[in-house]
Amino acid sequence: MGQKRQIPAPSVERLCRYERCLAKAARSGMSRISSQELAALCGVTPEQVRKDLSHFGSFGRRGVGYDAAGLCEELRRILGLERKRRIAIVGIGNLGTALAGYAGFEARGFEVVGLYDNNPARVGHLVQGIRVRHIDQLATDNQRAQIDIVVLAVPESAAQAAAARVVAAGIKGILNFAPTRLKVPDHVVVRDVDMTAELECLSFWVAQAEED
Amino acid sequence: MGQKRQIPAPSVERLCRYERCLAKAARSGMSRISSQELAALCGVTPEQVRKDLSHFGSFGRRGVGYDAAGLCEELRRILGLERKRRIAIVGIGNLGTALAGYAGFEARGFEVVGLYDNNPARVGHLVQGIRVRHIDQLATDNQRAQIDIVVLAVPESAAQAAAARVVAAGIKGILNFAPTRLKVPDHVVVRDVDMTAELECLSFWVAQAEED
Repeated sequence: MGQKRQIPAPSVERLCRYERCLAKAARSGMSRISSQELAALCGVTPEQVRKDLSHFGSFGRRGVGYDAAGLCEELRRILGLERKRRIAIVGIGNLGTALAGYAGFEARGFEVVGLYDNNPARVGHLVQGIRVRHIDQLATDNQRAQIDIVVLAVPESAAQAAAARVVAAGIKGILNFAPTRLKVPDHVVVRDVDMTAELECLSFWVAQAEED
Repeated sequence: MGQKRQIPAPSVERLCRYERCLAKAARSGMSRISSQELAALCGVTPEQVRKDLSHFGSFGRRGVGYDAAGLCEELRRILGLERKRRIAIVGIGNLGTALAGYAGFEARGFEVVGLYDNNPARVGHLVQGIRVRHIDQLATDNQRAQIDIVVLAVPESAAQAAAARVVAAGIKGILNFAPTRLKVPDHVVVRDVDMTAELECLSFWVAQAEED
């Protein structure tokens, strides 16, 4: 398994994209799809598609292409999407409250099972039908709740301390919205969300539109 | 310019990533960088790097590689990052309020110049030192404010109507957080933010960690 860990993060991001494109292709009635077609749908080169998939084994047959629905299923299994994932949100300020109400999570199999904060003024409040609990309760709760991922929506200054609580509770995945690099043990996975990357891509298209 | 518009969105996303990797490489004292090195830093194949760059001209020389700082500058120009971009946030609920305080925007040259809502209970309030204005004022304000991009942080049910106001105000770019596909004229560019994609990537690493 050690070897699998070396898969580059961008490959995994592309697998997510392939999975969505394949699901769409399969829904529109496409049964077989070539690496060229999949690449074109996803905006990458066919070599990139083949290389990304090669990390996980051998899919499709030369000259025949991939079974669209089958490869999609396989990617869902590889990505760990075939079962519900249980998430908790830590930090129920504006961002955490917004995320608690984000409809998209449920639709893609992510269930919000807990909300946590260290601010007594917030603890006990109902947000999206879930009662906010104190961060001190996270470790005990997790013995029963089996949280897969914590979405960390705390201010930058509180992020490292909150991450330490998450790690101490035995949770293995953190989606970090704070613009800071968290220090965690090797067995815990952190993914940083960078809101500016989206704006930068958009800037390009806007600049293009202005030139037109 | 019509031709440039056909550049696939994923290429533009990768240019953003190349720009960050190049800036980091240049800061660490690297003066020249090969397409293989850049590809390895960014987790793509060298062919992908060369293909993405080829949309915009000819950079680097065979056997010599790229001038890291120079290519970085060039990408910043291509991406429209060499000047400040002026953004407004429409929808000052939890998400909009959180975004108004997001420190990362300023650091990457995005200046929040206005906050708008259609809820009279919110209009007039100070959020991050900016007074929330009514969406009715957006078109007039924009004649002076020259807003490049609107960050749309309204509920799904209000998104299309709000987008229409943004378009009517003459603004050309929308970063849409609502999980809905907006209808806008061709000259307006929309980018949808999907919060679940990040969680899906993270799921993979968490599943891997569980297998270890």
